[in-house]
Amino acid sequence: MESIIFTTDAGMVLAELLDGTQHEDIFIVADKHTVLFCDRLFEKVDWLPSHVTVLDCGEENKSVESVSRIWMMLSKQGARRSSILVCVGGGVVTDLGGFAASTFKRGMRCINVPTTLLAQVDASLGGKTGFNFNGLKNEIGTFSIPEKVIIDTRFLNHLPVRERMSGFAEMIKHGLLSNREYLIRLLNLEHQETTQEYMLELIRRSVTIKNEIVTRDPREQGLRKVLNFGHTIGHAIESLSIMQGSPLLHGEAVALGLVAELYLSVKEKGFPEEIYREVRNFVKQHYPPYPLMNHVDTLYELMLHDKKNERWGVNFTLLSGIGEFSLDNYCSKDLVVEALSQV
Amino acid sequence: MESIIFTTDAGMVLAELLDGTQHEDIFIVADKHTVLFCDRLFEKVDWLPSHVTVLDCGEENKSVESVSRIWMMLSKQGARRSSILVCVGGGVVTDLGGFAASTFKRGMRCINVPTTLLAQVDASLGGKTGFNFNGLKNEIGTFSIPEKVIIDTRFLNHLPVRERMSGFAEMIKHGLLSNREYLIRLLNLEHQETTQEYMLELIRRSVTIKNEIVTRDPREQGLRKVLNFGHTIGHAIESLSIMQGSPLLHGEAVALGLVAELYLSVKEKGFPEEIYREVRNFVKQHYPPYPLMNHVDTLYELMLHDKKNERWGVNFTLLSGIGEFSLDNYCSKDLVVEALSQV
Repeated sequence: MESIIFTTDAGMVLAELLDGTQHEDIFIVADKHTVLFCDRLFEKVDWLPSHVTVLDCGEENKSVESVSRIWMMLSKQGARRSSILVCVGGGVVTDLGGFAASTFKRGMRCINVPTTLLAQVDASLGGKTGFNFNGLKNEIGTFSIPEKVIIDTRFLNHLPVRERMSGFAEMIKHGLLSNREYLIRLLNLEHQETTQEYMLELIRRSVTIKNEIVTRDPREQGLRKVLNFGHTIGHAIESLSIMQGSPLLHGEAVALGLVAELYLSVKEKGFPEEIYREVRNFVKQHYPPYPLMNHVDTLYELMLHDKKNERWGVNFTLLSGIGEFSLDNYCSKDLVVEALSQV
Repeated sequence: MESIIFTTDAGMVLAELLDGTQHEDIFIVADKHTVLFCDRLFEKVDWLPSHVTVLDCGEENKSVESVSRIWMMLSKQGARRSSILVCVGGGVVTDLGGFAASTFKRGMRCINVPTTLLAQVDASLGGKTGFNFNGLKNEIGTFSIPEKVIIDTRFLNHLPVRERMSGFAEMIKHGLLSNREYLIRLLNLEHQETTQEYMLELIRRSVTIKNEIVTRDPREQGLRKVLNFGHTIGHAIESLSIMQGSPLLHGEAVALGLVAELYLSVKEKGFPEEIYREVRNFVKQHYPPYPLMNHVDTLYELMLHDKKNERWGVNFTLLSGIGEFSLDNYCSKDLVVEALSQV
């Protein structure tokens, strides 16, 4: 299990972690937004600005070219295996930085400082790194657990509502995978009134749920596939939205994917219909709609590339109830199309 | 420990290993020379020619572009995690193919069929994969053990003498790391008269020596660094020769590196001078010379990028005797230059 630190002062935690490390051994990757946090974050570390790669924002830049820019900084500035790459940003930054670190000189040290809710409850944890290739999400990557993940809820104060809701979709998934009480709390949350402390409590809970699963199956041989609930269809929707030039945020696509895969769960595994409807209403209310029905063939084609698949079809994790999952289900294309029509 | 199969019929072994695998799940990477072996090699597998990436030969093509070509074949042809990439070739092919396989969908299956002596006794074993970047050898890579390595000495019949001697340098290193009797046998081998059976016996012995070390330290935390004996200087010479447009083969550069690092061992660790002289004579006799003394600053700069280094200098593995090694030695630049002058 990776070491996760919850704090309201990431700068202080970072200064302690990096104490004794020579400044020329500290490297930073951030994006154009999160680099603005770095001055303050590295205040106590006496940060060397020459050791920073600033990536362009957005899923469309999650590419081998971006990884090469990080590799080039590390190589040109003489990074060692014992040097540390600090990734400051959302999932795109931690996925790209994590991949670069895990492959530079066959593996250097890596610390994640996730700055979005999505990255704090999901992307920066568990060691999945990677980038998009051939139009497919995370087609290339490694399993490589970061040395530390520093979760500071103060970053969330800067977060646009859309970004916050994107992360919230993964938390709803955690609720579906664990217990009813947590799910209901999430679905009834008044986002405007949430205090930082209460949010921190929810994040801790999501992190714990994810971590228990990842610790038991770090390389996704079996159990870890449950974390892909909502993602087989969600990833296809996300890829479609990028292809169409109107990209959804990852969690927004996952929210739609959760509805579709809950529908499959109702039909195939007897998942309780009232909970399905409650989640569907929540998603309809809080997430942007996306027209899917003109693109069912493209979506199905995209699903066929999912990493969990075997040769014979699209592999789904389905639920028979909250916290009760069934791995490796293959649904007919007709049923998948029916599920898409419910979103 | 990876599973290594010694055979004189790689095609039969491959057919057995791939029995039951669907043809569309078999992918091949080879280079322009070794692809010519594939027809025969895959005769019994009913090989699908569309699933092949043919790389350009040579160290200068060990690049991210070549890796991308393999990734693109895998992605376009719908490879799965459970699909198998068969790497047929020398160290460049097995390093590139191994890296592509270990990162495609975060890891697919991989079988190595090394076709050069160097790849059979060294490169294809032990899970080091990667490619050159920013002019530096294997700057990017992973540790990822292939599922199987098939060693068929019949490939060596086609091997030019230069290529054979390149692999032989790594075997001499194995002799230096293990015992005097093996080393003396190697130094006195009449290459023209060596039978296939005798060669196989020597290869087995080298493979065993390497495997014992890798099994005890797969991720090069300590012990495995002994396998870098001769390589700190050897890699620098190899990189220099590529920069100068007159590339040495990997083992040719390592042979020169062995002489220089044995000299350091004599000076710093009291390694027996008569054995040093015997190895030096053998190298002078069998390997092409390379003018180093006009490039000592460049060579030293290249050594500073070695993956084993910490910040404070160039890290050498040195020997105090045959099979007696000392890790993490830092030698003065003056002494390193003196060692280069002996080559």
